[in-house]
Amino acid sequence: MTLATERWQEAMASERGTVEAALRQELRSCRGVPVRLRAAMAHSLFGGGKRLRPILLLWTWDALGPRARGGARRRGAVDRATALRAAAAVEMIHTYSLIHDDLPAMDDDVLRRGRPTCHVAFDEATAVLAGDGLQALAFAVLADCGPRASELVRLAARAAGPAGMVGGQQLDLDAEQTEVDANTVRRIHAGKTAAMIGLCLALGGVGRGVDEETVAGLGAAGQWLGLAFQGADDLLDVTASSATLGKTPGKDAAAGKATWVRVEGLEAARRRTRRLGRRGRRALAELLPEGEERERLLALADYMWQRER
Amino acid sequence: MTLATERWQEAMASERGTVEAALRQELRSCRGVPVRLRAAMAHSLFGGGKRLRPILLLWTWDALGPRARGGARRRGAVDRATALRAAAAVEMIHTYSLIHDDLPAMDDDVLRRGRPTCHVAFDEATAVLAGDGLQALAFAVLADCGPRASELVRLAARAAGPAGMVGGQQLDLDAEQTEVDANTVRRIHAGKTAAMIGLCLALGGVGRGVDEETVAGLGAAGQWLGLAFQGADDLLDVTASSATLGKTPGKDAAAGKATWVRVEGLEAARRRTRRLGRRGRRALAELLPEGEERERLLALADYMWQRER
Repeated sequence: MTLATERWQEAMASERGTVEAALRQELRSCRGVPVRLRAAMAHSLFGGGKRLRPILLLWTWDALGPRARGGARRRGAVDRATALRAAAAVEMIHTYSLIHDDLPAMDDDVLRRGRPTCHVAFDEATAVLAGDGLQALAFAVLADCGPRASELVRLAARAAGPAGMVGGQQLDLDAEQTEVDANTVRRIHAGKTAAMIGLCLALGGVGRGVDEETVAGLGAAGQWLGLAFQGADDLLDVTASSATLGKTPGKDAAAGKATWVRVEGLEAARRRTRRLGRRGRRALAELLPEGEERERLLALADYMWQRER
Repeated sequence: MTLATERWQEAMASERGTVEAALRQELRSCRGVPVRLRAAMAHSLFGGGKRLRPILLLWTWDALGPRARGGARRRGAVDRATALRAAAAVEMIHTYSLIHDDLPAMDDDVLRRGRPTCHVAFDEATAVLAGDGLQALAFAVLADCGPRASELVRLAARAAGPAGMVGGQQLDLDAEQTEVDANTVRRIHAGKTAAMIGLCLALGGVGRGVDEETVAGLGAAGQWLGLAFQGADDLLDVTASSATLGKTPGKDAAAGKATWVRVEGLEAARRRTRRLGRRGRRALAELLPEGEERERLLALADYMWQRER
């Protein structure tokens, strides 16, 4: 491990702590929540995630210094504490989607990150409500985030909604019944994963008050990176199981999951992931002024598709 | 049937058509939604509801003419077409809550208004996603509703969230396990039903640009009316089954549902409902200038707890 990598990992760990403190604060300041519902929301919200999405938002905000493109017409920028609230909201949306994904009617998972899933730790009805409640709370928090709050809400609702994350989940379900091609996999990954990653970068831009064109550029860069991130996930599912379980590739195929590995093979999927990741990195780099904050964000962008777990 | 009643019912039917056209427009203009998900959302959205909530919002907007309290400092008023979009968003939130309520893990209902529920017509996973998608879409629409959009989102997210509607559902679940008193029933009804009814009146006020105090007053009046509305529902569950099924009171009690009828008996529950309804009507009347629009809204308010089905 090089010194640079070590420092970067320290920065990630420290930021993770910042995000978790913000999430605790938001949950605490939401009064009048029934005890069991609050416990179920907290169970999933503090289940040891990487906090990739909120950190992407914050580090994009950090990297968009005054020299960034679209900086000339800054409008309605917010301070870092407010950007942190938006970051917490994004993590709430991500967490709600995991709770509902794990339900018996969906992926039927009993464990997540080594802990019982929400419907196992509580019950199915409570898990449905905990997810519903986290989605609403996320929008309540976003609505409080400064002069461009309605833009934050609009972007988040689209990314998380029926033409974004929820739509991707539906396509993923539909795909279990049929043969899929690489384009269908792309549509699924674009909805399920990339829409929310693109959102994080876009919201970092809105929080810095950059113009709409730059916000759209950040969103597009995030979508490339999101596709690469999901591509890496599919690859890891195969390579990690080869190493640790001595299994041959095919676990996702057996589960009927739509992945690029399944439709075009390991090597082609690896090349595709690399291509998407590089494209996203390049697009992102062009939008950011030079500096330490840019390097840190680009290192995170690289990690997203080069990671080993 | 008096002529006045007839006219009022015509107005309701006509407004219902307006709301349904608006809902169709919102769903149509949301591009990129997977076919099956769109069909599931439409199935529940166009299932023949009374459209009480959106009509309450619109008629509140109508009734708040220029002479209304809080009119002196009007800020960020919107036209009726925009108020109608907010009304459609509120109906989407209500519909999503019904879809999730009907799930096997929740109330396990196979029919709603004589048609198969969403998870029966489609499947459970699609029903979870259709509900999730409608909630997100509702916030996307609200975020587009004029200069006070972030206030609309904040109020809606609170009313629908873990300290509002979703919280009420959780308390209702919890109550199935234990003995409840009248105050617990009140807390459940306040969350499950009254929060969203209060929201409708409050959003009508925000749409007219009235001040915060008047918005709060409208919300409070709506909460009384919402409690009375739910009280009437509980009473009908008993009296309607007596008349149509020849059953004696006790259906809700057998299902373990928390109602005032169950905890304090039919007569006390009837008095309580009347008290709440009158209180709500009085509070609402005080906030509105005299005129035809006020009379129409007050007639709707009365119908909410005096209705026979």
